[in-house]
Amino acid sequence: MSEEITIGSYLLERLAQLGVTSMFGVPGDFNLGFLDLVEDHEKIEWIGNCNELNAAYAADGYARVKQNSLGVVLTTFGVGELSAINGIAGAFSEMVPVLHIAGVPSTSQQKNKPMLHHTLGDGRYDAYLEVSKQFTWSHARLMDKLSAASEIDRILTDCITVARPVYLMLPTDLVYQKIPRGQLDTPLAPRPPQNDPEVEEFVLNEIIKLVEQAGSDVIILIDACAIRHRVKDEAWELIEKTGFPVYSAPMGKTAVWEGYERYGGIYVGSISHPEIKEKVESAKLILSVGGLKSDFNTGNFTYRIPQVSTIELHSDHTMVQYARFANIGMKQLLPKLTARLHPFSDDARALHVPRFSAVLPTDDPMGEIISQAWLWPRMAAFFKEKDVIVSETGTSSFGVLDVPLPRDSIFVSQILWGSIGWTVGSTLGAALAARDMQLGRTILFIGDGSLQLTVQELSTMMRLRLKPIIFVLNNSGYTIERWLHGKVRKYNDIVNWKWTELLTVFAPADLKPAPKSYTVHNKTELSNLLDDKTFAAAETIQLVEVMMDQFDAPQALQRQAELSGKTNQYVGDYV
Amino acid sequence: MSEEITIGSYLLERLAQLGVTSMFGVPGDFNLGFLDLVEDHEKIEWIGNCNELNAAYAADGYARVKQNSLGVVLTTFGVGELSAINGIAGAFSEMVPVLHIAGVPSTSQQKNKPMLHHTLGDGRYDAYLEVSKQFTWSHARLMDKLSAASEIDRILTDCITVARPVYLMLPTDLVYQKIPRGQLDTPLAPRPPQNDPEVEEFVLNEIIKLVEQAGSDVIILIDACAIRHRVKDEAWELIEKTGFPVYSAPMGKTAVWEGYERYGGIYVGSISHPEIKEKVESAKLILSVGGLKSDFNTGNFTYRIPQVSTIELHSDHTMVQYARFANIGMKQLLPKLTARLHPFSDDARALHVPRFSAVLPTDDPMGEIISQAWLWPRMAAFFKEKDVIVSETGTSSFGVLDVPLPRDSIFVSQILWGSIGWTVGSTLGAALAARDMQLGRTILFIGDGSLQLTVQELSTMMRLRLKPIIFVLNNSGYTIERWLHGKVRKYNDIVNWKWTELLTVFAPADLKPAPKSYTVHNKTELSNLLDDKTFAAAETIQLVEVMMDQFDAPQALQRQAELSGKTNQYVGDYV
Repeated sequence: MSEEITIGSYLLERLAQLGVTSMFGVPGDFNLGFLDLVEDHEKIEWIGNCNELNAAYAADGYARVKQNSLGVVLTTFGVGELSAINGIAGAFSEMVPVLHIAGVPSTSQQKNKPMLHHTLGDGRYDAYLEVSKQFTWSHARLMDKLSAASEIDRILTDCITVARPVYLMLPTDLVYQKIPRGQLDTPLAPRPPQNDPEVEEFVLNEIIKLVEQAGSDVIILIDACAIRHRVKDEAWELIEKTGFPVYSAPMGKTAVWEGYERYGGIYVGSISHPEIKEKVESAKLILSVGGLKSDFNTGNFTYRIPQVSTIELHSDHTMVQYARFANIGMKQLLPKLTARLHPFSDDARALHVPRFSAVLPTDDPMGEIISQAWLWPRMAAFFKEKDVIVSETGTSSFGVLDVPLPRDSIFVSQILWGSIGWTVGSTLGAALAARDMQLGRTILFIGDGSLQLTVQELSTMMRLRLKPIIFVLNNSGYTIERWLHGKVRKYNDIVNWKWTELLTVFAPADLKPAPKSYTVHNKTELSNLLDDKTFAAAETIQLVEVMMDQFDAPQALQRQAELSGKTNQYVGDYV
Repeated sequence: MSEEITIGSYLLERLAQLGVTSMFGVPGDFNLGFLDLVEDHEKIEWIGNCNELNAAYAADGYARVKQNSLGVVLTTFGVGELSAINGIAGAFSEMVPVLHIAGVPSTSQQKNKPMLHHTLGDGRYDAYLEVSKQFTWSHARLMDKLSAASEIDRILTDCITVARPVYLMLPTDLVYQKIPRGQLDTPLAPRPPQNDPEVEEFVLNEIIKLVEQAGSDVIILIDACAIRHRVKDEAWELIEKTGFPVYSAPMGKTAVWEGYERYGGIYVGSISHPEIKEKVESAKLILSVGGLKSDFNTGNFTYRIPQVSTIELHSDHTMVQYARFANIGMKQLLPKLTARLHPFSDDARALHVPRFSAVLPTDDPMGEIISQAWLWPRMAAFFKEKDVIVSETGTSSFGVLDVPLPRDSIFVSQILWGSIGWTVGSTLGAALAARDMQLGRTILFIGDGSLQLTVQELSTMMRLRLKPIIFVLNNSGYTIERWLHGKVRKYNDIVNWKWTELLTVFAPADLKPAPKSYTVHNKTELSNLLDDKTFAAAETIQLVEVMMDQFDAPQALQRQAELSGKTNQYVGDYV
């Protein structure tokens, strides 16, 4: 007789094996039975969120920072899972491994379809599944105990292999059904494509041939998928051992240590710093690692890199010029490529790399007003090794690009999906993962407009005694949109909240040390605060309201807005 | 040459014709051009919400109160529309006419499918439409100017005819395209089924026959669809002219004036007050108007009314005992039925109707503590004619059922969909509609747990100078869930916010008169506050934190929880 375990506990053991320590979500009557198991689990902590969207955002942020694990969000049938769906779609778009568990009615109710609360009133019990299918790689609708363990294993393996969300429907009556536990003895692992040795060898030869033809005039461009598909270590070995100049796309920021002497900065097509643009676009050969060519990641599609000079390494295929090699994945290819390129390192190191540094403006026309041009280089001196830096879509995600971040820091942003408000939940998840991984401070940059969408999650951070530093850029509304359209329109205005009172209102009564909030009106005040050792030590949660001009935006955002504006142009007399 | 109008303006004119005065939503780069037109429109006010889910909730609340109009929510492609989707699904489930407009990429981008921000990165530009299809009656994906006007007209007509959400994809490049404006001269109107006179006559005869057989021992049971499908007036005529006893299901509350002498109260199957249960279930014939038999609306499916004794009037069909008559809708049938039933009125008025009244408990075991058993009857004396009373899923939606509400008051609750947090957005929309319709105060009852989901929308209420009274039942977490499962579990706990500081934090600096907040700890304090004339006059926004016991629930909720608990039973040792 083999030992038995409930299906609910089987799922939790699998998650614990994969390194999950936090589960996000909101209780609801179809998941309460499972929640008993979660609350009683020794390794997994239940993080009750204020709402489901924030919970999904938190699971996403957690998964981004907690390398080699995944994020988990638990919701209830219909009302809960649909509230979370934008967060799941974002994780799909940006390739983040998240498991979405929905507690659903019992298997017999799913068959008989009574008009339960949380249903559409028309018996369509599969409508929410149809929604989730759009934004998940795979799903499992558990309907009997026999297949439960394999179904759970299948979708979890998918989740960590392809770095995409998966969806699990967990009916109330199956949670406590018993199944054999033996399957747990075999741990789950990602299943990346196994490169065919013959094809792989062919690809390597082709690459070497091109490197030779280029006279070693090669640069490496690192991007999002190097992070998402977990080849940061392999890529770093290639970069360090060969010495080729390396640049990063916005979504690849912090894939490589930005203080590294052969690192030249961020390439964003025509938006790039002129020297970086020149260096990247004049290279004879570009070795792109994990490229993701979205509008905001490429300066609105303004790469000037011909395909004939490009080698692209991806998780599941390789492109050499125009040739596509299916199932040749970079996880296995990179170490071999490093070995083959090593002999070129003397040539490689002879190539000049511009120095990536943050320069404070010498005569800022805005004077003592805290300008975007000044803020970000000033922050450079504040960041420390192992900081987790979260930046919201808007002026923040553009502004921080030009700042070199310290070694082992992690940059968290949502440049493709771009859902405003996302960073608040994400910061919660990131801070929990950072605590697990013994990283440094979690630092959030968010605008006043974005913070209004998801503000309540500050409360959850405090309940969990997390200590992020939250910079609220108070620029009176949606500044990114003012640059895109409707500069002085009322629809881009918001209510100016009493930002420095938020933490006190949302804090548990027994929070010690008490939260701290500050308003800084000018450069001197902000500088002094950043230099304050107690502030920098981040020993309690802190919120800094940074007063800024509503029309001020980082250069990169101004240029992006100009390019997007052309595409979105509204015909008529209102523009 | 006929006069021309832009497609964006055409849409706005149609909405204005249908009585829309407020449009809810959040700006995003794919809807900014259209927003210029909204902001400049003379009759429609742009209500910028704090987030999209709250906006959808607000559109729903607006549509419920603003009879004969519809709610409108505007979001942006992907991130925005998906955040709103739970609100749209709720409107579908509960049959509320809401138009969801998503500003989407230009028609050429939709054809070429570039990897824009807010996309899934894989070129699936129709994924969000697939989602919306699940929760809308019909949709229009505008792709050229020729069909734009008819497409808009088609879905708006559907929306008001079937009282369900519809979805419109509005591409950036079409907003300012010009089309002829002539079509606007023909107003849109609902198209209920035209009853076939022969079938209708047959149905009327069948009904009269049954009434005669029943010896006039007939009761009328009024429910959700009488409100949603706008037959309140027709039903009232039937009720008043015939004098048959009338009862209401929870979702039909306030369809009939609850102070009417022939009104007996709320029937909820086995959960009902014993006298009501006896009267309804012993009647020889039940005339059900707009019935909706969901679990929470029927005491977990415990109606003891045999089908053979039931006549059901619906918007698009009629059931007489077991016989179904398709396309015989109640809008046209009701006036004829009233005429035919009028002769029975002497018999009808002889039937005894229990008096529906709220009774304060004489010896409340909870003493001075504000108990559920005391709170609701006490509120009865506070309500006034034309109040709009919004009650959140939880103790509130159950507690208020037993209180007779005054004439022309409107009860707003989400008993089938039951998405917690919904009432905050909904109150915003309801208050705007109430202002339009010159109704009275808008009064919200919500628990502390639910308010955390959507709290930021208090800010929008204050920006718009709305003056709702918000009762926050502070019972330390999710009390409804404690009754369902996990009574003392931590997952049902929440952070105890400083509730009385919320309004100040979220208020615009120039709000006059200033918001007021109160905490009441016992019956005397609450009673005194309710008796205070200034408080009752509601001349500024007011929030009342009502301190209550975390395990106290209205009788109806306790009984419902017992019944639901049986269905959701978790097998295992944790229950």
